Amino acid sequence: MALISVNTNSRPSFDKIRGISKIINVPFSIVKNKNELNKKEIEFILDEAKKFINFNKKRVKKSNLLEGRTIFNLFFEDSTRTRTSFEVAAKRLGADLINVAVKDSSINKGETLLDTMTTINSMNPDVLIVRHPEEGISKRISNNVDACVINAGDGSHEHPTQALLDALTIKNRFNNFSKLQIAICGDILHSRVARSNIIILSKLGAKVNVIGPKQWLPKNINKLPVEVYTDMKKGLKNCDIVMMLRIQKERIVGKIMPNQKTYFNKYGLDYNKLKYAKKNAFVMHPGPMNRGVEIDSKLADDITRSLIQEQVAMGVAIRMACLDILIKNRDNVLSY
Amino acid sequence: MALISVNTNSRPSFDKIRGISKIINVPFSIVKNKNELNKKEIEFILDEAKKFINFNKKRVKKSNLLEGRTIFNLFFEDSTRTRTSFEVAAKRLGADLINVAVKDSSINKGETLLDTMTTINSMNPDVLIVRHPEEGISKRISNNVDACVINAGDGSHEHPTQALLDALTIKNRFNNFSKLQIAICGDILHSRVARSNIIILSKLGAKVNVIGPKQWLPKNINKLPVEVYTDMKKGLKNCDIVMMLRIQKERIVGKIMPNQKTYFNKYGLDYNKLKYAKKNAFVMHPGPMNRGVEIDSKLADDITRSLIQEQVAMGVAIRMACLDILIKNRDNVLSY
Amino acid sequence: MALISVNTNSRPSFDKIRGISKIINVPFSIVKNKNELNKKEIEFILDEAKKFINFNKKRVKKSNLLEGRTIFNLFFEDSTRTRTSFEVAAKRLGADLINVAVKDSSINKGETLLDTMTTINSMNPDVLIVRHPEEGISKRISNNVDACVINAGDGSHEHPTQALLDALTIKNRFNNFSKLQIAICGDILHSRVARSNIIILSKLGAKVNVIGPKQWLPKNINKLPVEVYTDMKKGLKNCDIVMMLRIQKERIVGKIMPNQKTYFNKYGLDYNKLKYAKKNAFVMHPGPMNRGVEIDSKLADDITRSLIQEQVAMGVAIRMACLDILIKNRDNVLSY
Repeated sequence: MALISVNTNSRPSFDKIRGISKIINVPFSIVKNKNELNKKEIEFILDEAKKFINFNKKRVKKSNLLEGRTIFNLFFEDSTRTRTSFEVAAKRLGADLINVAVKDSSINKGETLLDTMTTINSMNPDVLIVRHPEEGISKRISNNVDACVINAGDGSHEHPTQALLDALTIKNRFNNFSKLQIAICGDILHSRVARSNIIILSKLGAKVNVIGPKQWLPKNINKLPVEVYTDMKKGLKNCDIVMMLRIQKERIVGKIMPNQKTYFNKYGLDYNKLKYAKKNAFVMHPGPMNRGVEIDSKLADDITRSLIQEQVAMGVAIRMACLDILIKNRDNVLSY
Repeated sequence: MALISVNTNSRPSFDKIRGISKIINVPFSIVKNKNELNKKEIEFILDEAKKFINFNKKRVKKSNLLEGRTIFNLFFEDSTRTRTSFEVAAKRLGADLINVAVKDSSINKGETLLDTMTTINSMNPDVLIVRHPEEGISKRISNNVDACVINAGDGSHEHPTQALLDALTIKNRFNNFSKLQIAICGDILHSRVARSNIIILSKLGAKVNVIGPKQWLPKNINKLPVEVYTDMKKGLKNCDIVMMLRIQKERIVGKIMPNQKTYFNKYGLDYNKLKYAKKNAFVMHPGPMNRGVEIDSKLADDITRSLIQEQVAMGVAIRMACLDILIKNRDNVLSY
Repeated sequence: MALISVNTNSRPSFDKIRGISKIINVPFSIVKNKNELNKKEIEFILDEAKKFINFNKKRVKKSNLLEGRTIFNLFFEDSTRTRTSFEVAAKRLGADLINVAVKDSSINKGETLLDTMTTINSMNPDVLIVRHPEEGISKRISNNVDACVINAGDGSHEHPTQALLDALTIKNRFNNFSKLQIAICGDILHSRVARSNIIILSKLGAKVNVIGPKQWLPKNINKLPVEVYTDMKKGLKNCDIVMMLRIQKERIVGKIMPNQKTYFNKYGLDYNKLKYAKKNAFVMHPGPMNRGVEIDSKLADDITRSLIQEQVAMGVAIRMACLDILIKNRDNVLSY
């Protein structure tokens, strides 16, 4: 048999990390609450994920860690990278992965989302991975099902596994977050990626700057552990990482911004603006990119500066870790 | 290896149940014919399915019973629960499951349905699972392919695995059908679920009442082994089970029925109407539900009365049994 | 364990077939270039595929040859037979197969195709199977990713695995290509199947006639190793195989051809026109068929003359061989 097991001897007792099943809940709030991943839990996930990085580069990328587990991808918005990243992660761990797309859904027949979820829950799944335009929907679903729920993006609210994979990408380069300064640039207001990253990166000890045009900064931004800038030159100063956000073109054209070129000149990252940051600063982007809008095309492809493709690779590793941890943690709670 | 085999020693010889491959054919007719599942065969399927109920509650829900078998989900109508139920069933038995959705189909390129089916048949599949709006299409396909064909719903005609899972749900509670009285309520005319349930439940020995507004009762209803009612109070009397049918909202509004509220008042199941049935009678619904139209929302969620979520769980078990039986039966017929 | 391995002892050293990873590149050109599959390589693929023909007829159609490999189906055009054929092939070899459909794609969010491909490539896949309307896109993708790329149809340009499966179908009947005369009939101009078949069949030693109305013959047709006919009677003379091409109905009606019946009378294959070919000549069609347009319905179903269903079966075997060869060849190039 060519099945290869990741060594699990080093896995700490899950009793020590109660609450890790709350990976779904990294709320947009600095108020401590029970549902939030704490620093220790985040670091544990990053450490677990590290084990899968080399595993994913092997010829035979197959473990039986989650063999016989049933995982649902429930994507109610288009997605290539996140959906397939979870699918690759689940399959490499040996799980059965079932895709449900919104258009095939009973929701079209008038069924409520929660009914669809409790229906699927009755098939004894282990994990539901949910992307949905509604804020906080993962939490509501989680309150109604036995299965673990992973929030794979809920509206403009949260995208925790994206923030975790970004943290892992950064950790690979700098190891220690406490001395890092990270800029998150662009449409902060509508970005679930920004919210989740602000929370996770600041918890890990990094200093976070957000930079964007005034109309794209959330009202309550001052309650977050960030420094706020509207000017790239000032905001990028001393930054080790420049994380660009995706801009929804349709929002920009005509309405808020005069045009893409004007936006790019002021907030798009190119080699010139990158000079404002630290020498050798790295560039990140969650994708999909609008080349020439939020980032210069050549810079995006410059593997000496851009970590964009590495982020995707870390995405698979992070999702493998999240699936494995959630399921193993659940095993300790449930009696079968 | 974490593969777990269901104990198959207790499986009776398949020679004894010739004809079981005709699970696709539970026609809307009480005339005995060779294609119909008989009582013994139905009971055999229910017994086989029972073995999978606990299996599906385990951590590792994976058998190698159907390893290396190729099963196609061919859904020409939207479906979440039935499609995913079959997919979960196939994967837990170790089979390879391939989804083909109508919109990706060559049928869009002018190919006939039968050509699509014979094409897929040439890839040496073991089972084709077909949902299609055309009555009797599974039977026609079956006549043109080597693979087993399972009817997963053909228009308003039949939905045999739904009726089997309903029977299994009932059997879990009452064991013996011979003393049971079961009401099927709502739009009998357009319901494939009703047709298949009437046939299977009456064969198992239950007494079946159908209740619905006159225009939703089939003309030939008197040829079926049922008692017919248009009044819930009379029809529910002495019933152990009240099975509600899904109403297509678009049919009701304006056209046939004055409005949903009027319909609900007369035929929608709530705690008050449920009192007409036996004390402790159970409620069933094939889903997806229109809450507040055919069933009261609170009653639907009342786990002391509602078996709705249990039906879904039984669905996976029934489909595992059907796939396993059909394939094993085919093995005895074919020479490889 | 019921996993069955195909005997791989007889596989020749892959060093001997350098260039086999260029299966994606069978360009529409008779000019020799490095990217083209040569005769020896084609024959090697056919020989490898032969091993899978009987394997696919077994009860347990599961090998672990490609266990732990990640294969993506990236179909940007509708397809049933090709997509599912690759999916069946990949799964029977034990690989993890992930479908990405265009409508779920980030391309809808403004991302470029190459960005989507490099994103997927960062998930460490082994093979990308690509169907796309743009000519030469597989080659461009291949230049930008580590993964092997298989061209599953690029516009009107190439469809190499279709030509290989056609060659395998013919080889099963005649074994030796050197004495064969093969007619390819219909819309040569827009047919990627025709182009790939002309190249591969002529390399294998067969004499190829193309037959079609003038407006559907490519301008540079004389540079190809074919004889060109506009008359079925002349073109079919002495042919052992008559390969009909699919006609896009929407192109015919009103615009280029007066109507389907006129076309059928002149170029549609029926028993009468088949008499122009050799006695016992076989009929082929890549599907999906337009019955009554390019081929007589009865003839298409006549298993004494038509190899159409056999072509589909050979498709799975060819794709298993291509996946296996490409991945094993890549293993020899890459250091993990």
